[in-house]
Amino acid sequence: MNSIDKLIKIFSEFPGIGPKQARRFVYFLINKNENYIEELKNEITELRKGVSSCSDCKRYYFSKFDGQNTCSICSDKSRDPSLLMIVSRDIDLENVEKGHYFNGKYFVLGGLVPILDKNPEQRIRLKEMQSLVSRMSSKGLKEIILGLDVNSEAEYTANILKSSLSLLTEKYSIKVSELGRGLSNGTELEYSDPDTIKNALKNRS
Amino acid sequence: MNSIDKLIKIFSEFPGIGPKQARRFVYFLINKNENYIEELKNEITELRKGVSSCSDCKRYYFSKFDGQNTCSICSDKSRDPSLLMIVSRDIDLENVEKGHYFNGKYFVLGGLVPILDKNPEQRIRLKEMQSLVSRMSSKGLKEIILGLDVNSEAEYTANILKSSLSLLTEKYSIKVSELGRGLSNGTELEYSDPDTIKNALKNRS
Amino acid sequence: MNSIDKLIKIFSEFPGIGPKQARRFVYFLINKNENYIEELKNEITELRKGVSSCSDCKRYYFSKFDGQNTCSICSDKSRDPSLLMIVSRDIDLENVEKGHYFNGKYFVLGGLVPILDKNPEQRIRLKEMQSLVSRMSSKGLKEIILGLDVNSEAEYTANILKSSLSLLTEKYSIKVSELGRGLSNGTELEYSDPDTIKNALKNRS
Amino acid sequence: MNSIDKLIKIFSEFPGIGPKQARRFVYFLINKNENYIEELKNEITELRKGVSSCSDCKRYYFSKFDGQNTCSICSDKSRDPSLLMIVSRDIDLENVEKGHYFNGKYFVLGGLVPILDKNPEQRIRLKEMQSLVSRMSSKGLKEIILGLDVNSEAEYTANILKSSLSLLTEKYSIKVSELGRGLSNGTELEYSDPDTIKNALKNRS
Repeated sequence: MNSIDKLIKIFSEFPGIGPKQARRFVYFLINKNENYIEELKNEITELRKGVSSCSDCKRYYFSKFDGQNTCSICSDKSRDPSLLMIVSRDIDLENVEKGHYFNGKYFVLGGLVPILDKNPEQRIRLKEMQSLVSRMSSKGLKEIILGLDVNSEAEYTANILKSSLSLLTEKYSIKVSELGRGLSNGTELEYSDPDTIKNALKNRS
Repeated sequence: MNSIDKLIKIFSEFPGIGPKQARRFVYFLINKNENYIEELKNEITELRKGVSSCSDCKRYYFSKFDGQNTCSICSDKSRDPSLLMIVSRDIDLENVEKGHYFNGKYFVLGGLVPILDKNPEQRIRLKEMQSLVSRMSSKGLKEIILGLDVNSEAEYTANILKSSLSLLTEKYSIKVSELGRGLSNGTELEYSDPDTIKNALKNRS
Repeated sequence: MNSIDKLIKIFSEFPGIGPKQARRFVYFLINKNENYIEELKNEITELRKGVSSCSDCKRYYFSKFDGQNTCSICSDKSRDPSLLMIVSRDIDLENVEKGHYFNGKYFVLGGLVPILDKNPEQRIRLKEMQSLVSRMSSKGLKEIILGLDVNSEAEYTANILKSSLSLLTEKYSIKVSELGRGLSNGTELEYSDPDTIKNALKNRS
Repeated sequence: MNSIDKLIKIFSEFPGIGPKQARRFVYFLINKNENYIEELKNEITELRKGVSSCSDCKRYYFSKFDGQNTCSICSDKSRDPSLLMIVSRDIDLENVEKGHYFNGKYFVLGGLVPILDKNPEQRIRLKEMQSLVSRMSSKGLKEIILGLDVNSEAEYTANILKSSLSLLTEKYSIKVSELGRGLSNGTELEYSDPDTIKNALKNRS
């Protein structure tokens, strides 16, 4: 197999990319100038060197090489230490941060646990989560918000989280809450599914 | 203009139907057998004769010609008279009923009020709504749920409803609530918009 | 079953209309004023009375009740009697006429013949077609263009047409041609399928 | 700007990729194992080293480092030297080759010329094209097929090609043809646009 085909195979693993678009990527790279190609390779190298996992929330960030091992959010002293939101992936954290509404701290699980999976600890960062909750309990942690998706896998994961946190939450009287279910922005009642309406009714105010 | 063109124009007013599909309807009718055409015309006539607007909730239903002027839901004595859900259209009522979760009564406004519209009473059934709420107050009405869509027009309408019901709700201590906002079923946090996340955080439990 | 449900069932047979949209049609009709409903029923009646099938091309048209039994195209003496295009449905004829490029005469088959169907004569108007071609042969008919779709069913139908016309076309030296295959307007070669490219190569000029 | 953001910017230039998907690519690379990352960088390097532009048709191919500077198609002695198809991009050539119907030779222009562009020679490989045609004229070239898309830009480019080849084609009596226009595979006459029908009529047979 030559480079064209090998690179098509490699690019086909990129998220959302199939062989046809992978092929377009290859032709694109064939035609780019040498500078672009060098930059691409260099930044991929730098990415792997300079990106770290924050020691608190575990999200990936570009470290400043200053001894600090926490990201900008976790280092920010103005964040509210009484609130911790647990999310599934970095991109969920970013989406919540975009709204500038939540001022608490985060923890990134690194995924969700498929239903009936026997090794949750290989799917999500259970130990690191318990470790962070433990550290935060002595610093005023009052509430843990489970900020997960709304589907069966996330529900199964939420139950695992509640179990694995139960000792800590009971010991320190930490409340565990879930994001409110109901009608999302722009919804028309006519098109809402029964479960959403049921939740919207339950959570009316 | 001949019948083909006139009928195309008439069918073009059907919801979601443009001239091209209206034309297909006409050719379809040209080609159908006489029975089908007679049934179509007859049922349209029967529809107009037999369909009534329920005197309570105002939705359209097929009356049984038995002197009753309320629909099957409003006649149902097992419905909870302490709860009234106000919806925009018949089809919203039907969607909520499908879930078999809500056991209270309904009222159909007949639409929404466009923002800054000067004649709300021509858009929605304000008088009939006040009339029903008045009748229900003496029969144990405790809560009115505004079951509208989640957009600006619905929000504007909701404010008009609260104003026009304020006298009654204060006098009889009737609670006015709105359907809970938050994450709808099947949502992924990654794709939720800021307002939905903000609501989900506010409504967490 | 009441009128609402019966009418939903009837409208569900309309081309491209399912039960959900049929229901919207019914609510739409419930809410329209009496004039609209009367017009709808009247024009459906007039349609069935006043629409005829042109005695030459067999397309449906609104007759002027003047003894004439041919449509405006077939009555038009400026049309070229040496060219006859055979199409599948009225709507094909209309689409070709829209371009104002073809000045010959038409014949509408009324459909296509499914592959291996044993009764072509129940699917398309074979006899009427032969009858028209016979009449046109003595008036200068030189070429019959098969203006069908490009798929297997149309190909099968084209073969049936050629067979059933062979006696006449041989006797009167009438050429039988098919619409050119190739790249359609707006095509990008990158996205064209192998058969289209093959045809485009064959038909290059 | 850190590596994450720099790489997002770089990936955003990939064909069909916007900032949101570029971000997903970056997180994807952060999470991949070291092997994958090394392979990615290596193959990009090898691509640039080993990919050449065929000296005849100018398409990119992976050279075998054997002194040969023509691709597998141009080296193939069984190809018909009397036919040359000129296409816009490598991917067009590949799509035609997929059908295994064309056995002549190719030339890849490298793009199309925008209408009224003043420097066609910077957009497409005019000189190399004339050079190839000149070489092929003495080896039996009889016909040049313009295998371009069907839109205004391609039409403008086709005229430029005909002009720039006119001396050679007249001198050696080489025919210049275009791919046939007409109904593409799977077309329904009802949905064809006027230009396509007009072409199909002109090219009937």
